[in-house]
Amino acid sequence: MTQFTRRSLLGMIGTAAGSSAMYYAMTAMGHAAPSDYTGPIKLDGDPQGTKVLILGAGLAGLTAALELRAAGYEVEVLEYREKAGGRCWTLHSGDEYTELGGDRQTVDFAEGNYINPGPWRIPHNHYALMDYCKRLKVPLEPFVQTNYNAFVHRSDAFDGKPQRMGKILTDYRGHVSELLAKAVDQGKLDEEVSAEDRELLIESLRSFGVLNGDNAYVKSLETSTYRGYEKQPGGGVGAAPIPSDLYDPQQVIQSQLWQYLAVHETYEHWAPMFQPVGGMEEIAVAFAREVGDVITYNAKVVSLQQDDNGVTVTWEDIGGGGGTNTSTADYCVCTIPFSILGQIDHNLSAGLSSTISSMFYNGSTKVGLEFKRRFWEQDDQIYGGISYTDEAITQISYPSTGYQSDGPAVLLGAYTWRGANSYKFNAMTPAERIEWALRMGEKIHPQYREEFKAGVAVSWHKVPWVLGCSGIWEDREAQGYDEAVKIDNRVVCAGEHLSYIPAWQEGAILSSLDAISRLHDKVING
Amino acid sequence: MTQFTRRSLLGMIGTAAGSSAMYYAMTAMGHAAPSDYTGPIKLDGDPQGTKVLILGAGLAGLTAALELRAAGYEVEVLEYREKAGGRCWTLHSGDEYTELGGDRQTVDFAEGNYINPGPWRIPHNHYALMDYCKRLKVPLEPFVQTNYNAFVHRSDAFDGKPQRMGKILTDYRGHVSELLAKAVDQGKLDEEVSAEDRELLIESLRSFGVLNGDNAYVKSLETSTYRGYEKQPGGGVGAAPIPSDLYDPQQVIQSQLWQYLAVHETYEHWAPMFQPVGGMEEIAVAFAREVGDVITYNAKVVSLQQDDNGVTVTWEDIGGGGGTNTSTADYCVCTIPFSILGQIDHNLSAGLSSTISSMFYNGSTKVGLEFKRRFWEQDDQIYGGISYTDEAITQISYPSTGYQSDGPAVLLGAYTWRGANSYKFNAMTPAERIEWALRMGEKIHPQYREEFKAGVAVSWHKVPWVLGCSGIWEDREAQGYDEAVKIDNRVVCAGEHLSYIPAWQEGAILSSLDAISRLHDKVING
Repeated sequence: MTQFTRRSLLGMIGTAAGSSAMYYAMTAMGHAAPSDYTGPIKLDGDPQGTKVLILGAGLAGLTAALELRAAGYEVEVLEYREKAGGRCWTLHSGDEYTELGGDRQTVDFAEGNYINPGPWRIPHNHYALMDYCKRLKVPLEPFVQTNYNAFVHRSDAFDGKPQRMGKILTDYRGHVSELLAKAVDQGKLDEEVSAEDRELLIESLRSFGVLNGDNAYVKSLETSTYRGYEKQPGGGVGAAPIPSDLYDPQQVIQSQLWQYLAVHETYEHWAPMFQPVGGMEEIAVAFAREVGDVITYNAKVVSLQQDDNGVTVTWEDIGGGGGTNTSTADYCVCTIPFSILGQIDHNLSAGLSSTISSMFYNGSTKVGLEFKRRFWEQDDQIYGGISYTDEAITQISYPSTGYQSDGPAVLLGAYTWRGANSYKFNAMTPAERIEWALRMGEKIHPQYREEFKAGVAVSWHKVPWVLGCSGIWEDREAQGYDEAVKIDNRVVCAGEHLSYIPAWQEGAILSSLDAISRLHDKVING
Repeated sequence: MTQFTRRSLLGMIGTAAGSSAMYYAMTAMGHAAPSDYTGPIKLDGDPQGTKVLILGAGLAGLTAALELRAAGYEVEVLEYREKAGGRCWTLHSGDEYTELGGDRQTVDFAEGNYINPGPWRIPHNHYALMDYCKRLKVPLEPFVQTNYNAFVHRSDAFDGKPQRMGKILTDYRGHVSELLAKAVDQGKLDEEVSAEDRELLIESLRSFGVLNGDNAYVKSLETSTYRGYEKQPGGGVGAAPIPSDLYDPQQVIQSQLWQYLAVHETYEHWAPMFQPVGGMEEIAVAFAREVGDVITYNAKVVSLQQDDNGVTVTWEDIGGGGGTNTSTADYCVCTIPFSILGQIDHNLSAGLSSTISSMFYNGSTKVGLEFKRRFWEQDDQIYGGISYTDEAITQISYPSTGYQSDGPAVLLGAYTWRGANSYKFNAMTPAERIEWALRMGEKIHPQYREEFKAGVAVSWHKVPWVLGCSGIWEDREAQGYDEAVKIDNRVVCAGEHLSYIPAWQEGAILSSLDAISRLHDKVING
């Protein structure tokens, strides 16, 4: 009956949220040690000049570098890219990006405009990341996740015409509250609800669902106070409001637009969310201010070898200097994504190697579209937030900054992950992806073609230095998560892929903090 | 059974929202002329030097001054205060304020800190105000209305311990969804729900309420994905999440904390909301940049007289110069609140006079509290948004800016309106109001006493130039709204009190635009 099942929706939410809970509900529970972040890590004891080589200057590597150096270690970081951050990455106007296969894009946005191809929002309950932003003085501003005036859209609902999320939500809530309140009132739930609770339950449903004294959800000024009016209240003469028609209950249910109502309700999307002022990469810039002096950029690791005496890493200078170099250390924190590490010559243990080579990576695509003006604000009164659609672009996210400004602005015109859509986008050239985003987006915003100025498209399977957007654990036990996070002689791996919060920066940081605290314990206590 | 009835809640929401719908649902409908704002006003035709005297430089008066001058009128504005804005007012550190009765407060906040005693948030659907902010280049930032991690609190629920709003919401939604899904599944609603819709309705409730395959809302990683975990997912070793216990359904219903769930769901509170960077008064500052040259400040109007030839206003210079002055004009836009206008000598028509003298004004109190540090962020992970309580302070609103900054910060520690609480606060000295806010607020934040630094309290009934926070229409028909908004010979009144959006700046602007467009029509077309 419905091709967009609850399962696929939960999958969508789960991946969007990066929440492990969806996929791993069957994972054995009961690990005793809490890994919640409760404040800056304390690494007591003198490491006496122990050297740690850190591979990768994404957030996991940067965290390790910052904390280990502060604890007295000698630290060296090797980074493939020309700058720090990894997937904590912002494409600014003028930036160039060449994907696997050679397609090269220059970001032709107006000065100051940008798009975050990777992480783009910070839950306020990602405590470690929030704390690093505070410590590193990265100014945060609200990321508008929820906008009731944004659209929900399905091609098979309401003749393909987008509807305002807040109206669908208010009417859905009203209709189901009415059904339940009437059932309780008619005694149909006397077995389930105790006599003393019935009146209060009905009272609560009247509040929650905006029901009238007869427990009915009807067209009225009261319901319009929640869903919006036919004519808004005004001032002076002829200013009385006119209530709006409700959606028919059957229409709301059959439209399936209720599927988008839960997206912003997950714990990781609890309002408010945040973003760094100026782009996500400002976090990496702030880290690099602290530890940039120990990072070697343009260093492509080709070999990672360890023995009982230490670690030897061979790397190529791809920054123009050329040549092959060797770095040695007592220990290594390896934050190279398993998608890349599996292609590097290494002598890690068989168990870890098996996990490395068996891990698949999500293939997300993001398309940034710059338009000549903020028509979503000026024409549609949508200030930030997200419209959802069953088109392959899945959503359109409007900028959470620069409200009401004139001139060009950038929105996120597509955000796909996993599944058929991701593969489709992968197979396209960047120009084709942008065309797809325009073709689908104009069903929601007919202004698209007229106002389009420039686009940039990043398909993560084609990002040369990670080949995917995040590691996938289909089955942590079968794939050997518990083994993979252990210190493997002198090497410990870390990153979002070694956490229960994959695809989120918090997972990378918590994984790194856990890894270095165990490594430190080994160094100090043997 | 419940002292906090739906009626009182709706009253609370209605007044908080400033929504007229709650109070005036019985008002006769069907006025034909839409007063929705659809863009800048157009006043075509040459007024040929006609002079308009505008009384009051709040948002209604400022709007009239800006638009009438642009249309070619000679404009003069008389303002009681020493600056523009009226209730669009920000108390900055160092400001002084003396209320009726002589109590004088100096705002002892740290440099840059402020509180808005009047309007403090802008709905994105207040189109006129949003447009003036755009035209006058007032930068807006999100006002965080909804914070799921903020508290809901009642002294008689959960032993008086505040609970996180998001947990109450998730569990309430889950429990009621389960009740309805099971009733539908058991055939109890076969008369109300058609056979073809039943399956889809149940599917929607599973999504909306986070129900499992048995239509049950149970403790699980899935429900924790929405309500938060016992132990959050982490990184590395021992990082698996642990699900959280649910509130018992009966506990949720009986707690009545569901009463706070609807507050941020009204149309005027639809996410996102906005605030001007630096305080609400920045809007007045921007208007004054445009029309400040025609405003006479410190001008206390003592008489408003009109005849067939024009308008004569007598006013006293209370700015130190002293003396009584006279201003004349062809017409007058009078935005003086009726609470004040009723005390001024005037010869307005009997009908209008009757309305003026019969209008009561809301008596809201706001208390701004400055604390040494942002303990609500640092200790409680609440970044902006509002906690609700059944204490007389009704709510605590955390700052929507300066997130994670060190040093003192200001929150809104009380916001009362109408009813017994307002009168209680009115009768107190400012110091007593602050003490009350501390005593009640510390039930939610025990850190209050330890961290308190300074406070300022504004009770609107004691604000000398308005004597209330907004005009109340108990019954528009009986009180003569339609007569009061008409042009009275050469005088037309405007302001939030002459709108269907009382207490909101949008009401003041729309009322003013409506008034001046009718006035202009009279000038041009006779």
